[in-house]
Amino acid sequence: MKKNYLLSPGPTPLPPEVCEAQSRPIIHHRTPQYLSILKEVLENLKYVFQTKNDCLIFTSSGTGAMEASVVNLLSPGDKAICVQAGKFGERWAEICKAYKIEPIVIEVPWGKSVDPRVIQEKLSSVKPMPKVVFTTLCETSTGVTTDIEAIAKVVKNTEAVLVTDAISGLGVLPCKTDDWGVDVVISGSQKGLMIPPGLAFCSVSEKAWKLAAVSTCPKFYYDFKKYKKALEKSDTPFTSAISLIIALNESLRLIRKDGLEKIFKNYHVLADAVRAAAVGMGLELFADKSCASDAVTAIRIPASIDGESLVKIMRDEYGVTVAGGQDAIKGKVIRIAHMGYINEFDIILCLSCLEKVLTRLGYKFNIGSGLKAAQEVLIKEIA
Amino acid sequence: MKKNYLLSPGPTPLPPEVCEAQSRPIIHHRTPQYLSILKEVLENLKYVFQTKNDCLIFTSSGTGAMEASVVNLLSPGDKAICVQAGKFGERWAEICKAYKIEPIVIEVPWGKSVDPRVIQEKLSSVKPMPKVVFTTLCETSTGVTTDIEAIAKVVKNTEAVLVTDAISGLGVLPCKTDDWGVDVVISGSQKGLMIPPGLAFCSVSEKAWKLAAVSTCPKFYYDFKKYKKALEKSDTPFTSAISLIIALNESLRLIRKDGLEKIFKNYHVLADAVRAAAVGMGLELFADKSCASDAVTAIRIPASIDGESLVKIMRDEYGVTVAGGQDAIKGKVIRIAHMGYINEFDIILCLSCLEKVLTRLGYKFNIGSGLKAAQEVLIKEIA
Repeated sequence: MKKNYLLSPGPTPLPPEVCEAQSRPIIHHRTPQYLSILKEVLENLKYVFQTKNDCLIFTSSGTGAMEASVVNLLSPGDKAICVQAGKFGERWAEICKAYKIEPIVIEVPWGKSVDPRVIQEKLSSVKPMPKVVFTTLCETSTGVTTDIEAIAKVVKNTEAVLVTDAISGLGVLPCKTDDWGVDVVISGSQKGLMIPPGLAFCSVSEKAWKLAAVSTCPKFYYDFKKYKKALEKSDTPFTSAISLIIALNESLRLIRKDGLEKIFKNYHVLADAVRAAAVGMGLELFADKSCASDAVTAIRIPASIDGESLVKIMRDEYGVTVAGGQDAIKGKVIRIAHMGYINEFDIILCLSCLEKVLTRLGYKFNIGSGLKAAQEVLIKEIA
Repeated sequence: MKKNYLLSPGPTPLPPEVCEAQSRPIIHHRTPQYLSILKEVLENLKYVFQTKNDCLIFTSSGTGAMEASVVNLLSPGDKAICVQAGKFGERWAEICKAYKIEPIVIEVPWGKSVDPRVIQEKLSSVKPMPKVVFTTLCETSTGVTTDIEAIAKVVKNTEAVLVTDAISGLGVLPCKTDDWGVDVVISGSQKGLMIPPGLAFCSVSEKAWKLAAVSTCPKFYYDFKKYKKALEKSDTPFTSAISLIIALNESLRLIRKDGLEKIFKNYHVLADAVRAAAVGMGLELFADKSCASDAVTAIRIPASIDGESLVKIMRDEYGVTVAGGQDAIKGKVIRIAHMGYINEFDIILCLSCLEKVLTRLGYKFNIGSGLKAAQEVLIKEIA
């Protein structure tokens, strides 16, 4: 009879419309029936990506789309700036190295975000100039949002192309692809887009297509050009994950119905509530206040308590799944996501569980102080 | 109120257990709950692959796993034999070329299968010897099964590694990976495995791992070694398509319950029924009798009739989806699949629809002769 709740930074819970869509009998992909669904998906993806650029759809995890952007924009021997402010940022340099592209790594302490001036400095000092700047919109491992708008201002007037991993940020945080001038925006299906993992996306600007035209990295499955050609018929070059595309059609309709502005505001309030609750319980936030993400909040666990046990008890005994810390901060933080099909009451129940398990593990605080602090934000901000 | 039926060579219809599994609330992938599912999937995959080798799971279309086998086994400048007896066989050479691997193409006329002696001859005459022999178990575009057992006998005693694309053959046709000695067997999720597209698989032999150890093709997402390492914890290196894995767990249980031998025999009878029906209607089979596949049957359409219209009317007016011809045989054949969650009555209804639409399009034949011929096979062979 245990009820389960998911507040992890991907996968996020599925709306009932998405669950239902996945359970339908499968249809064939080379039919007008399916192509009309893909067409609607492609249109609504442009809305969520806030772009007029092509949006390519890969059947793959998000990492596949990251690799796709590397192998389509660059050639062996090229240099690329890789901003590294957490576990997911590190992946850019790893992929570059696999393809003999030289990563110019900008290391940022975990919990902080990159200063755009450092990127500007690298773009003018490194010779030959790096062709691509790889960034992360929301660094899920630390709960930090990068100021992509400011970085875009720096990159826009150079020859370099700006790529943003928005896997766990798209549909959650503002990402004005065209207005800001982000050349390639990457996303995955299991975060803000509220469907299971298995699909990944790239929007590609004209400036990026010019770089793609001269790239010599070998590629086949991830070859942008194959996807662009298939787009002429609103299709994909290889069999796509049909049931996930049909699910995506449902979730994109839901997103479009609510509208991005309202959605972003809502996540911001949920994030504020979680941050207030942490402070109310006397806990410390891991991310700098200046760059705390509205998609996921990392909270430091008191030194006397093992964060791994906390996460395990919340999940296995109370059915509340949040994420622990990774790598250097393993056992030292918990991460509560406020993205996807999550509302204010999910946040409250998660905080209730956190208070209960922290108490069990011996942490002393004013019981209910987290809930109260969150509730004050939610009552004030959500009608 | 139209009822829809799917008899296409992928995707194949989904068992209700699979539909239901996909509609469940999503669970997190870094949990013991999910890893226990993955573990069962990995065990049952070995049963279906008939192997003790590692089975790697990719979130990808089948083409991705084909590319994975190329980039993990070979290095730029290497030679590889690519058997090309249809549209899917052609893909091997295309992928090789993308990675500067020299394809030694063995062209086989469409509708026929490769003579293993030709492979033997190439292996001894081409210098340096090709490192890999790429084959296709069931060439879906022509309805031909390749004699992989005989090819394995030829390749086994050489240094070369045998790779078989069994995307549309695994779980449908005998493929004794270990007994025959097939080093790498590739499959996809949407054919014999009866779940939607989005997952792909590779089984990898010790001999293939030795080749993988010296491969210099660049790779990241498809790097076999990353998958092998994750297998130590029954895991995948990147977020897998969770809902598809859970669906796969259900379909593999169904397959294991019936048993492969019974399943293979059943498909063989369904294929015999379709072949008998075609002959009964005075139509010609596209594949040579010696190599006609039990997974899919390609039937030549009378010259006076446009095969594309035939497929379209069957699908759009009667709800029966079969496949047309591709490339050189576009409009000239229809392809009826008898794999996946398909039984004798599906075959009968499909043939009923085919007879009806052929009649509408002006083809003269003894009405019911196809049904009668199929029925005779089904009554005799299926209790």
